[in-house]
Amino acid sequence: MTISEDEAAQWWATAVSHIEPGSIELRDRPIQQLIGEVGFVDIIWLLLRGDLPSSRQSALLEAALVAGVDHGPQAPSIAAARMAATCGVGLNNAIATGVNMLGDAHGGAGQQCVEMLTDVRTLHEAGHTWDAAAREVMDDWQRRSRYLPGFGHRFHPRDPRRDPLLALVDQAVTDGIVAGDHLRAAQAVESALARRRGGARPVPMNIDGATAVIYAELGFPPPLARGLFVLSRSVGILAHAWEETGQGRRNKGPLPRSVLPARLPPQQQA
Amino acid sequence: MTISEDEAAQWWATAVSHIEPGSIELRDRPIQQLIGEVGFVDIIWLLLRGDLPSSRQSALLEAALVAGVDHGPQAPSIAAARMAATCGVGLNNAIATGVNMLGDAHGGAGQQCVEMLTDVRTLHEAGHTWDAAAREVMDDWQRRSRYLPGFGHRFHPRDPRRDPLLALVDQAVTDGIVAGDHLRAAQAVESALARRRGGARPVPMNIDGATAVIYAELGFPPPLARGLFVLSRSVGILAHAWEETGQGRRNKGPLPRSVLPARLPPQQQA
Amino acid sequence: MTISEDEAAQWWATAVSHIEPGSIELRDRPIQQLIGEVGFVDIIWLLLRGDLPSSRQSALLEAALVAGVDHGPQAPSIAAARMAATCGVGLNNAIATGVNMLGDAHGGAGQQCVEMLTDVRTLHEAGHTWDAAAREVMDDWQRRSRYLPGFGHRFHPRDPRRDPLLALVDQAVTDGIVAGDHLRAAQAVESALARRRGGARPVPMNIDGATAVIYAELGFPPPLARGLFVLSRSVGILAHAWEETGQGRRNKGPLPRSVLPARLPPQQQA
Amino acid sequence: MTISEDEAAQWWATAVSHIEPGSIELRDRPIQQLIGEVGFVDIIWLLLRGDLPSSRQSALLEAALVAGVDHGPQAPSIAAARMAATCGVGLNNAIATGVNMLGDAHGGAGQQCVEMLTDVRTLHEAGHTWDAAAREVMDDWQRRSRYLPGFGHRFHPRDPRRDPLLALVDQAVTDGIVAGDHLRAAQAVESALARRRGGARPVPMNIDGATAVIYAELGFPPPLARGLFVLSRSVGILAHAWEETGQGRRNKGPLPRSVLPARLPPQQQA
Repeated sequence: MTISEDEAAQWWATAVSHIEPGSIELRDRPIQQLIGEVGFVDIIWLLLRGDLPSSRQSALLEAALVAGVDHGPQAPSIAAARMAATCGVGLNNAIATGVNMLGDAHGGAGQQCVEMLTDVRTLHEAGHTWDAAAREVMDDWQRRSRYLPGFGHRFHPRDPRRDPLLALVDQAVTDGIVAGDHLRAAQAVESALARRRGGARPVPMNIDGATAVIYAELGFPPPLARGLFVLSRSVGILAHAWEETGQGRRNKGPLPRSVLPARLPPQQQA
Repeated sequence: MTISEDEAAQWWATAVSHIEPGSIELRDRPIQQLIGEVGFVDIIWLLLRGDLPSSRQSALLEAALVAGVDHGPQAPSIAAARMAATCGVGLNNAIATGVNMLGDAHGGAGQQCVEMLTDVRTLHEAGHTWDAAAREVMDDWQRRSRYLPGFGHRFHPRDPRRDPLLALVDQAVTDGIVAGDHLRAAQAVESALARRRGGARPVPMNIDGATAVIYAELGFPPPLARGLFVLSRSVGILAHAWEETGQGRRNKGPLPRSVLPARLPPQQQA
Repeated sequence: MTISEDEAAQWWATAVSHIEPGSIELRDRPIQQLIGEVGFVDIIWLLLRGDLPSSRQSALLEAALVAGVDHGPQAPSIAAARMAATCGVGLNNAIATGVNMLGDAHGGAGQQCVEMLTDVRTLHEAGHTWDAAAREVMDDWQRRSRYLPGFGHRFHPRDPRRDPLLALVDQAVTDGIVAGDHLRAAQAVESALARRRGGARPVPMNIDGATAVIYAELGFPPPLARGLFVLSRSVGILAHAWEETGQGRRNKGPLPRSVLPARLPPQQQA
Repeated sequence: MTISEDEAAQWWATAVSHIEPGSIELRDRPIQQLIGEVGFVDIIWLLLRGDLPSSRQSALLEAALVAGVDHGPQAPSIAAARMAATCGVGLNNAIATGVNMLGDAHGGAGQQCVEMLTDVRTLHEAGHTWDAAAREVMDDWQRRSRYLPGFGHRFHPRDPRRDPLLALVDQAVTDGIVAGDHLRAAQAVESALARRRGGARPVPMNIDGATAVIYAELGFPPPLARGLFVLSRSVGILAHAWEETGQGRRNKGPLPRSVLPARLPPQQQA
């Protein structure tokens, strides 16, 4: 009995790349025409979308990728990658350990924020003012979660990455590179949130919100906000794992060894 | 063009299990004859080796699996799994995060110790006394590494798991369940090490050494010492990840949030 | 400036285990009292719940753990672990690769099924017949998903693990070991499903459903259905990764090397 | 009892980044001075090394990063990431699954090749001709392994990425951007290998060899050849995982479902 080779070949069919002996094509372009000709950010765009960005689109994507590379060892993904690097595994395994932790709570806010901004835009297109659209979507979101994805930061009163990123989007809107709808949606949410909190500490857009604006303005679907953040944060994860490797620790735990975790009484068990 | 179905089927050929519609065989035994009839430890043995252990062999393997289940959050694998559980990923991803860190330095000592004890036994079979064999292998090992796998513990002056495990092996040797060669090899290394250190703090066998004796006596090849340890420690990893889930933290870092990691001057970079 | 040591110790506080130099306690029991005394399945229960099961509770849990150990290389988790084992990583990394893939679609059905059965039981306690409760919960579930977790199998017309597992639960109900509410809930769903499908191919309970009944009857919360399945399937993942190691392949792909994945035209891109 | 906060802070000390409320510094540079000003490739260099590259150094690194992004679903890492994407895990978990498999055999050749080229250069500096140095190092390497890292490709008679990458290094040597010693070492190995094989099919430098030349010429230590490859290949892993997500499969195995893995007889067990 046989199956056609085509059946097996179709099971793994892909438009991303095509490889034959002596030939590598990425999105139907021979690799030798890309090496030295196309930048790393452009090839990210090409593989994900099938075409090449304009230089201004690429610059906007690049700024978002640069902004997210690292947030230090207080981030669980960075800490875990550093610990993994001391456990006798390859650098790739240490990076995978960190990337694996960029889940819904740690790396998913950008994805959720793109969804939220898209909802605001949809309501606005249906006739709501930006403010009314923002408030309705916020209400809906806050019914389901106490976190509004992309706004506020547990650590920074004002995320230092917000202003430079939004300035770049602003300029891109002015220059007609992107439409600006998601920027307006995000600003509407930020304003409504500030009014709602009255005199309380404001919760301005954070890195996830500002990069979500960029990814959404460039037309990336929500899950790719997380995917692109992974590419960005992988840089910091690698840098930290590599630095830790050079420090010679072995089986590094979360605390200096003299500190013993406390005993939780049985009645407090989860 | 076709390939034979057999070629594709052979690419994934296995003796571990065979699945057809309505039928599941593990090592050629129908699953319905195993459920409720064969214990969990026995099925571990069956899948790895193709036959079933005697009840005494199974009891020895079980003791080793029980001994290694947990060593608290100071272990990087446990800490990372707990942190992962707060990042918005599934419990399986949290477990994978911990297991991924059981590398050469964190989970590989048992594997290395089985290799070392086997070397001692081989020299003894070639005519060396146990002591001479142990000293020669130790010398060789210590030329390559400052750690002698399976001996000493950074935390416990005497690992509390050593004595009960070795007592079980002792009894199994007395009863003719296992041959005892790897036990003698380990004891020879432990004695030689104690003499070599003179009055200094002794470095008795640890959990990796004592379980390596068991795995080797039962005939498991060295890499399965790591594999079996992974099955054992997965229990603690799961229990800790689950407990953390119940505590409601989000993106838990390695330190309380008030503590900021220190700034390392550039000249100390790795 | 100082923080109290207690603050750092509390950040990692746990009731699962307590380690001090020379002492290891699991759920407040010295490890040396557990080794050789308590079985592997019992220690799983102990670490997750803080107490020890009765021998009949333990036997029921053991049957569920045995039933799920393997489903061959057609399962993506098994295939990925085998491929990982040929890529030059440790056996622990190969296992982690497989475990990481036991997500909502591959390893989460048990968890979802426990939730569903609990909903059925809650409605029954509120006065519905078992049948009415089952139909209402099924309707609700099927509005959200085309899969009813724990019922039907893409491969087996009738899962060979269903009958032996349910026979054990039946006996345990008869003997007063478990209450039987979740079993009745599952049977009600199975019957309602059969009637609804009329003469069409029935979709009987599968491994996820039958083990969900056991986990729920034993009082495990839904996420632990996934956690326990991970412990079980890790055995098969290890056995397959280890077998692959012995076959000497290097960088094994999903298809024999002569088969090239087909080229998907650009317009079919995701 | 207290520990100094500094002790905990020092445990996680790093030169990579420094975060305080309202401030993020990467290698002592405020993030707001990097966003929109520094490219993504430059920030990779900055985080790994602490300084910024010249534009020509950056272009060389960029070409290497572009060259390695993808090699299709026949690569186990790509296939596993695609399978993971159908299992109900986040896109970050799918990427981690692929990255985790870039081990010594799948992603480590670049690292090994940098080590080998550095050995050749060291012998040359000690007085050997390039050819004699290459032959001695090759002999030494081939005694330990049947693979010479960075040369030959199981799939491509001549890797299409070799020529464009080496042309860029050649130009950089001509222009005084890099010294060219590692390029000469690699060419010496390639020539010696061709002569040794006589009329047999030659084994020219592959992607791992050509990028190893670039990484070594730019001064990256060997393990970062693997680290940088991980950053590069993560792009293809993401693109494939994302494409698979759009195809709607669930629990995709390695073969079309009609093909059952063959039964391996017990005597062939590993």
